[in-house]
Parts: sequence; C-alpha cells; structure tokens
Amino acid sequence: MAGQAHRGRFEHSATVRFHEVDRAGIAFFGRAFEYCHAAFEELLAATGLDHVLDGGAWRLPLVGAEADFRRPMRMGDRLRVELEVAGLDERSVTFRFTLRGEDGDVRATVRHVHAAVDADSYEPITLPRELAEGLARLSLIEDEG
Amino acid sequence: MAGQAHRGRFEHSATVRFHEVDRAGIAFFGRAFEYCHAAFEELLAATGLDHVLDGGAWRLPLVGAEADFRRPMRMGDRLRVELEVAGLDERSVTFRFTLRGEDGDVRATVRHVHAAVDADSYEPITLPRELAEGLARLSLIEDEG
Amino acid sequence: MAGQAHRGRFEHSATVRFHEVDRAGIAFFGRAFEYCHAAFEELLAATGLDHVLDGGAWRLPLVGAEADFRRPMRMGDRLRVELEVAGLDERSVTFRFTLRGEDGDVRATVRHVHAAVDADSYEPITLPRELAEGLARLSLIEDEG
Amino acid sequence: MAGQAHRGRFEHSATVRFHEVDRAGIAFFGRAFEYCHAAFEELLAATGLDHVLDGGAWRLPLVGAEADFRRPMRMGDRLRVELEVAGLDERSVTFRFTLRGEDGDVRATVRHVHAAVDADSYEPITLPRELAEGLARLSLIEDEG
Repeated sequence: MAGQAHRGRFEHSATVRFHEVDRAGIAFFGRAFEYCHAAFEELLAATGLDHVLDGGAWRLPLVGAEADFRRPMRMGDRLRVELEVAGLDERSVTFRFTLRGEDGDVRATVRHVHAAVDADSYEPITLPRELAEGLARLSLIEDEG
Repeated sequence: MAGQAHRGRFEHSATVRFHEVDRAGIAFFGRAFEYCHAAFEELLAATGLDHVLDGGAWRLPLVGAEADFRRPMRMGDRLRVELEVAGLDERSVTFRFTLRGEDGDVRATVRHVHAAVDADSYEPITLPRELAEGLARLSLIEDEG
Repeated sequence: MAGQAHRGRFEHSATVRFHEVDRAGIAFFGRAFEYCHAAFEELLAATGLDHVLDGGAWRLPLVGAEADFRRPMRMGDRLRVELEVAGLDERSVTFRFTLRGEDGDVRATVRHVHAAVDADSYEPITLPRELAEGLARLSLIEDEG
Repeated sequence: MAGQAHRGRFEHSATVRFHEVDRAGIAFFGRAFEYCHAAFEELLAATGLDHVLDGGAWRLPLVGAEADFRRPMRMGDRLRVELEVAGLDERSVTFRFTLRGEDGDVRATVRHVHAAVDADSYEPITLPRELAEGLARLSLIEDEG
C-alpha cells in the first residue's frame, strides 16, 4: 500500500470504495483530493517527515487546490496516483498528481499548493530545508548541493 | 438548513464537524468542496431540479474544481456559503463560492465547473434549458427573455 | 442548525448529502454515526463543553457504538436526530439516538458509549462533574441535587 | 491492496489517513466501519459478487452494526482487518471483523449484519444461494454440499 519513488515521480495506489461513490457509481469528485493527499502522506512517510502532519513544529496546510476530471472513477477501480513536484519556492511547494486507471488512462489531474506555517501561530514561514532535502532524496527534485 | 436566493446569490450554511477536522482542529481542505456541493444541492432542490442528482435523464458531473484557502476553518465554525453563477455556456455552468466565517471573513473561495451529460452514456449534451430557467427564477442569472 | 433541548431530549437536524449516499441513492450506513455525533457536538456546544472535543484537559472518546437500520435514508432527506441519555456511571455516558424522517418514521436507532480519558495519557478517568452538570442543565438527566 | 482468504478468515489492510483522524490524531470512530466495509468489498470482488454493490438484481444493505473500540487507531497506522462469518441464516449474514495494529494488538472489533433485499423494491428476500457458495469457496463457511 505504501508508495514508491520511481523515475522522478512518487507512486501510490488507491481503490475506489463503495462509500466514496455516488448515485451513479462514480467517485464523488472530492475523493480525488483525498487519494492525492494519501499519496502525499506516503511521500512524507518515505522521507521521515510525517511529523509535519502529526504534531511537529511546522505544518504544510493547503493554500490552493485544483482538479480536472477527465473520466469517471468507478467503484472498485484500482487507481495509480502519480505525484510529481511542479514547483518549489521560498514559501510553498506545488505537487502535480495524475490519477490513472489500470488501463493507464488518465482519470483526473490535480494540483496541490502547500505553504509552510508555524504549527502554533499558523503564520507563514520559510519552507524548512528538510523538505527540499527529503524531496531530493527521492529524486523528485534535483539535488541542490 | 435549506439555502435561500439573496441579491443575485444563493446562500447556504454549514457547520464544521468534528469528523471533518484534522490533527490541528482545522477542516481538511477537501471538506470545502463538500460544503460547496451541499449549497449546490440546495440550489437544485430550490429549483425543483434535484432529479439531476438522483436518477434523472441527465446529470451534471464536475469537470473542474479549484479552491483558494485563505484562513483556517475550525471545528464548530458556522460558515456561510455564498453561491454565484460565474459562467454559463452551451455545455457547462460554473459556480463561484465564497465561504465566510460568522465574522464575515473569507475563509476560502471555490469554483466548480459542471458539464451536462446523458445519464446513461455519460456523453456530453447541451445544457438542458430547464437549468438556465431555474437559475433565472432564483435571479442568479439574467432572464433570457 | 444548532440543536435544542426539548422534553428530556436534545434535538438536532441533518440533511442527507449527495456525497453521503451510495450507488442506490441511500446514505452509507456509517453516515448515521456522523449525524449522531454532530448532535452530540451541538449538545456539548449548548453546555459550553466543546473544549472536550478541542484541546481540553479531558476527552470523551467512543468505546462502543451500535446501530439498527430500519428504513433507508435517502439523498435530500431532512432527518431529525433525537438524543437522550441512556446511562451515566462513574466512567462513561451512553447516548441513545433516534433518527427520524420528516414523516416522523424511525430510520435508525443508534447508541454511543463514551468514556472519559485524560487528554494526554488517554488513561481512563472518572467522568468530570461538569458533564453531569451540563446534562442536568439541559434536563437530559435529573438534577443530582 | 486486495484482501485474501486465509485459514477461515479473509484479510484486508487499511492505512489510517490524515483526513480520517481527528483533533487528537486518532481515527474518528466511524472510520472503523469504513475499513471493515472495504474488507467486505474485497471479499465480494474475490467471489465475483461485486454486482451486489453495483447495480445487480439484489443488494445486501446493513441492518445492524456494532463496534467496540479497544485502543486508538492513529494516523499512519497500518491496520490488518480480519473478516470472519459469524452467522448465516435464511435472510441475513453476519460478519465479525477484528482490526489489529502492526503489532497484532486488537484496536477494535466490529459486527456487520447484512440482509438481502430486492434491488428495486428494497423488500427482504431469501439470501441468494450464490452468496453462500461464494463464502464456501473462500472457506469462510463449511461447504454445504
């Protein structure tokens, strides 16, 4: 179930569950954001950065999200969620996700923009270096060395 | 709980629930899309178009969604969700949502793009006239004469 | 949207949302527990005890839950959630919930058993007196004199 | 990710996700029912009975559910969900689930009672023979021969 880094991207899988589909047997669109966030959670776990989500000194809340839905995701579909780093600056990191069916067809593309904040004040901070280091370790960004 | 049309927009309310917040007591970002979709559901109910979501001949799946998250939505927050029509063409309708706290402060802005499809084939169709008529009846778009 | 105390019970309302129903247009059974928990949240808010859910010194996690599902809850249904106190002892409080449709028909009955724990250690503690006092204030239990 | 039959029980795994935990970093209790239902979905897929959830002639809605929560399920926990058949009669089937952490410790036990209904009328029907056959094929019940 855990994701893996693979040629400049990190991959994770998700199965569309009964409680996630709607009247038409199709995943409610909001579920796509959950599948992508799960891939991000596995990415953090793979870099030892899961404290960011669970009581650490800084956090990475979403400040923006967008999605294009190309084809329905149906109950039971085994999805491949591909995560790539689309941007990284002083304050934020942007992930691009591609959700594919087992046939490789794109079902949706998603972008998440996360900004670093202090865990207590929720004030913006400079993106901690350990994040870029973790992303480089997984070959998701070029080594900054 | 039902929303109401009000000076060119439709309003709905939502309370941030315990099961919707995360480790930091803040609504998981994906919930914002659910709050907005609930406003859309109330809009459909107010225009007698709820069959669109529940077994009718055509449907209005999301083809795009985006959100900017400005300030945290915390557990127990009573949110006002304002819905406006941002665009309407042959094939799709775009809603713009503004989520505000009780103080009136903007917490997030969201856009949903819906396209009309045939309920069986899921092939795109021209937006049925009854939708524009319903939106006009609630003064969300100008009467088409 | 906030609940109210009423003849020995506390009432709350919930609308079955599109993202909560399944392939058959019926609320996924797990949603019933969310509707009931929302009533509990409103109860805590009404007694000024919401800190229990949000960073206070003690917490009230669920240690047991059960439900009987009598009739389907369908998309758009406006449900009345009635909360009563079914039991109260040194360590735990049990709530009984009745979910009714607009016609008054029972859709489901639910029981939640909550035990008091220390917020840090998660070790069981004696139910803090302020909880019984809050329940008495809303006439959900007899005054303890 | 798919479950497997194993010495009289069927096993599935689930990871506690960020959007499923609450303010204390602990899975909202209602998520346990979702993890168990996912195991049931994999069971149906393994027996070729997934049509029961997706447009077939009969359905298996929940008529009862109960859970005992023993120990917190925390964000990132890799859970093993063990499914066993606790009862089977003319009208209903009861599954018993045990949720364990990676250490083998029991986090929760859950029971789901499903009754067979006609997909259109939602009236109770005799449990179709193909269900018992499927359960026997996975060695979850004795062969009825």
